[in-house]
Amino acid sequence: MATTPQFPRVALIGLGLIGSSIAHAVRQLGLAGELVATDASTDVRARATELKLADRIATSNAEAVKDADLVIASVPVGVCAAVAQDIAPHLKPGAIVSDVGSVKGSVLRAMAPYLPDTVHFIPAHPVAGTENSGPDAGFAELFINRWCILTPPEGGDAAAVDKLAEFWRTLGANVEVMTADHHDLVLAVTSHLPHLIAYTIVGTADELEDVTRSEVLKFSAGGFRDFTRIAASDPTMWRDVFLTNKDAVLEMLGAFQEDLSKLTRAIRRGDGEALFEHFTRTRAIRRGIVNLGQETASPDFGRPHGPLPKAPEKP
Amino acid sequence: MATTPQFPRVALIGLGLIGSSIAHAVRQLGLAGELVATDASTDVRARATELKLADRIATSNAEAVKDADLVIASVPVGVCAAVAQDIAPHLKPGAIVSDVGSVKGSVLRAMAPYLPDTVHFIPAHPVAGTENSGPDAGFAELFINRWCILTPPEGGDAAAVDKLAEFWRTLGANVEVMTADHHDLVLAVTSHLPHLIAYTIVGTADELEDVTRSEVLKFSAGGFRDFTRIAASDPTMWRDVFLTNKDAVLEMLGAFQEDLSKLTRAIRRGDGEALFEHFTRTRAIRRGIVNLGQETASPDFGRPHGPLPKAPEKP
Repeated sequence: MATTPQFPRVALIGLGLIGSSIAHAVRQLGLAGELVATDASTDVRARATELKLADRIATSNAEAVKDADLVIASVPVGVCAAVAQDIAPHLKPGAIVSDVGSVKGSVLRAMAPYLPDTVHFIPAHPVAGTENSGPDAGFAELFINRWCILTPPEGGDAAAVDKLAEFWRTLGANVEVMTADHHDLVLAVTSHLPHLIAYTIVGTADELEDVTRSEVLKFSAGGFRDFTRIAASDPTMWRDVFLTNKDAVLEMLGAFQEDLSKLTRAIRRGDGEALFEHFTRTRAIRRGIVNLGQETASPDFGRPHGPLPKAPEKP
Repeated sequence: MATTPQFPRVALIGLGLIGSSIAHAVRQLGLAGELVATDASTDVRARATELKLADRIATSNAEAVKDADLVIASVPVGVCAAVAQDIAPHLKPGAIVSDVGSVKGSVLRAMAPYLPDTVHFIPAHPVAGTENSGPDAGFAELFINRWCILTPPEGGDAAAVDKLAEFWRTLGANVEVMTADHHDLVLAVTSHLPHLIAYTIVGTADELEDVTRSEVLKFSAGGFRDFTRIAASDPTMWRDVFLTNKDAVLEMLGAFQEDLSKLTRAIRRGDGEALFEHFTRTRAIRRGIVNLGQETASPDFGRPHGPLPKAPEKP
């Protein structure tokens, strides 16, 4: 596709699900004059070369960011500080440095102290993903109609924010700007708490004495299987999310616990009216999400169904 | 399709998601010499006539079950007793009477006392569904490769159980036989607890002070939207499930609460190792469900993604 690159050179650090998806989209849309990418893992770099994820696969972060106009670190939140320290001396003045982490306050605090004043540091979080990880999991369409939240530090350069916003919009995303602290509170409820609950219940089901694992798997279509998707997400990424957004997660968990106690009490007391009222209210939330284009309107997430078997023919 | 009907006459009571799905499948497969159906709601009966869900729409349960060889009640668990009382005097000797309720112990206790000894009462539970309800929600393929659990009372007629099992297998389901009590324990973990948790968290997210409903909807792709599907299920059905399977649900809830406390403590203490270990273990469960054919292998449940937008062309 003959397009004007938005940046002469883009550098991607980390080629998991998000990094490799950005790589696919940048290449397909021709957004970079040159796309350079790297990953801490030798195996991932080798696979990225096979998959032709970038014009050039660099063997170090320093090499990758050299002369880059946009640098995006797609790494677990826990290693952001190390990456910032690593790349700082090699950054081109005027470059935009960003990330894709699910927590923003800690990323800001971890990376900012290392980065030189000559670059524009604008943390970002594309609220998109699948349960798969690694360089083979990425695809160019991942960000389409999803939201990307930018959390520029106070006094950040408005033109640089606009440029990064334009980049994400070109990838198909909607862009919203907010403070890092508010981001962390919002995502604690729309993402972190759901993951924690899913990880918990999947673990609970796996450790019961009276119900076998085989039974849990076989009868999972009753609802349980929905939870297993996000409980299959990358363990390193999610460990770091909970370690770095502890306060907001614990706050949301407190609210959840109160509500669970209320419903538990209604069950214990046989209060059908309270249950019915609650279950009716929650139904409306899904309609809102579907109407906003953030969820498919197809029943059961559009999961496929096989064709009816043939009935025995008349003799 | 020219097939041998398995039953000269089949009667369906209740034409919501499950009842109307059975109706579609029975008609498409030609499993009934005559299919008679009814519903307590005048509107649903009218819609069922428009949709041609049965050969004949009866205006009362008594009329529907007359001369039927197989009667299936697809009604909320809470009205099973009333249905049994209603149909009992009109049942044909030798008929099989069944249901599709998500709780089996209470259905057995509610219906059995009313039903005459001349019929075979075999409770059943097809573990299948979508978040949609009503006569328009049904489709013939709903039961394909899902499990249908039969819970015949002790001393139930083996030939009748076989006949009902054959019926469900023809609809595409796998059949398993177990006691009603064990069913209620298994489903408490694979279905009832997940629904309770989903209903809770969706309610929690909707009532926060610091995060608006609009933000919850917009950023729901971070994980939250997965929970909204089962929290959009039929409120009457689910009220009855929790009222009638109270003990098993509270038992599973106890186990869940212990595990949630354990993970909460790990977060509070910053115990990354415990979190990582837990998150790695739960990942395997989903693989088991996919391998068993109870879940799609496609990432993100196979949710659709739009095409990449066109990048600006070179001038």
